[in-house]
Amino acid sequence: MTLDTVSTNKAFGGVQGVYAHASAETGTDMVFAVYVPPHAEGAKLPVLWYLSGLTCTHANVMEKGEYRRICAEMGVIFVCPDTSPRGENVPDEEGYDFGKGAGFYVDATEDPWSANFRMYSYITSELPGIIAANFPADMDRQGITGHSMGGHGALTIALKNPDRFKSVSAFAPISSPLNCPWGEKALTGYIGANRADWRQYDSTALIEGGARVPGILVDQGDADTFLADQLKPALLKAACDKAGIPLTLRMQPGYDHSYFFISSFMEDHVRWHAERLG
Amino acid sequence: MTLDTVSTNKAFGGVQGVYAHASAETGTDMVFAVYVPPHAEGAKLPVLWYLSGLTCTHANVMEKGEYRRICAEMGVIFVCPDTSPRGENVPDEEGYDFGKGAGFYVDATEDPWSANFRMYSYITSELPGIIAANFPADMDRQGITGHSMGGHGALTIALKNPDRFKSVSAFAPISSPLNCPWGEKALTGYIGANRADWRQYDSTALIEGGARVPGILVDQGDADTFLADQLKPALLKAACDKAGIPLTLRMQPGYDHSYFFISSFMEDHVRWHAERLG
Repeated sequence: MTLDTVSTNKAFGGVQGVYAHASAETGTDMVFAVYVPPHAEGAKLPVLWYLSGLTCTHANVMEKGEYRRICAEMGVIFVCPDTSPRGENVPDEEGYDFGKGAGFYVDATEDPWSANFRMYSYITSELPGIIAANFPADMDRQGITGHSMGGHGALTIALKNPDRFKSVSAFAPISSPLNCPWGEKALTGYIGANRADWRQYDSTALIEGGARVPGILVDQGDADTFLADQLKPALLKAACDKAGIPLTLRMQPGYDHSYFFISSFMEDHVRWHAERLG
Repeated sequence: MTLDTVSTNKAFGGVQGVYAHASAETGTDMVFAVYVPPHAEGAKLPVLWYLSGLTCTHANVMEKGEYRRICAEMGVIFVCPDTSPRGENVPDEEGYDFGKGAGFYVDATEDPWSANFRMYSYITSELPGIIAANFPADMDRQGITGHSMGGHGALTIALKNPDRFKSVSAFAPISSPLNCPWGEKALTGYIGANRADWRQYDSTALIEGGARVPGILVDQGDADTFLADQLKPALLKAACDKAGIPLTLRMQPGYDHSYFFISSFMEDHVRWHAERLG
């Protein structure tokens, strides 16, 4: 596996890099960003995965997320994958909420999506191998977070891989794709009409089905225009309450769905993970 | 004067806004960004102006500058103007370093530029009136900073208005437009062939001519590809040393000309200004 360096820039004493590689999972070239904080020669650092939301690439959080200062202070590697396969040969549809930029962190089973849209396996299997091989990463200390569609990704991936991820949080996550228009459209398209098959990609349903994590931090703006119809943190809260999972759900007054919201609380999330990753 | 609100987003407890207005100086609509930190009702806050570099609008530093956290902590209003007039009726040229996005903070005297390219008067006269009238700004406590072309703007404007600006700093400024290709091109085009007329827009020449400020903070990456040919901080240092102006010139090892550099040292600059603005 060859990793191409697209760019590196010194920032907060560490290195913000952008890298490209040919992905076996997606059958395309994939681009991701990694911030490596300043560290002692030979040290291995904990890793925080950040899964982005609809329409985003690796670049949105890299430019607007304001994670480097606190990652430098806490000694945390920050990994920013893309949200879907890209390229002329990848199928797509009109609209921002399905196809390119909208992989929903699932392995698609439906044609024509199943060939390339394998973001679950890309994030949980292929990319971790690349991170382990190319960066000073302690893969025994991984946490995961994300925003909106990426919050859904972070929660579902943590719930399905509790031995791997020691910490999980989310910014304004889609709490239950089974119960919102974005989820209905995406999972129908990628996974098919059988809603029972969707439950493996629904954090609320996973908790109802017995999946457990030690705790979850969620920040949610109460001025977020997607709150009532798409995000529905009350569903996640009900599932966590019933399951006894400690959910710290912070409703943030006046905040919307943008990176102005995310950046305002990024430090809290990095600290949440760093404390749990040691 | 009508101020149109383009957008507002809550961030770090305050409000990041983008505003538009018809400018008498430029004869065009102008857009700028202002961050107002959380503050007590009726309080008046110090103002830090940030002048951007070539190709930028108000948006680059708003998205990548990472100033909101520290401005919220220190209670500083952060103002981000555009770098030139815009619009179909505004003259332009091929290339990134003259015309739109490259106003150089001068009042042009040459045709066809003189009608619209009046960024010096826009920044020092028209926009301050708008800030004073529409935001909780204490105009007796103003500081100014900027990057590259905007660092040149900040230094020259502070040197020409020492009673107004109580603090000045710059990131990788063009230290002497008289002595670099960017400056030669811009000042020839906007001001004309008489180099004596350029000295009012050259921080090094202004200091040589007797202009004084109480002190200057400059950060400069030593991996900045524009350092040797365009930026030349040694010229500024020589002028400051001769004039007895305390210049804190920090050569930052490994840093380039990007916002990864700017954001890494933004906190230091906001603190520098906040300490001097009280």
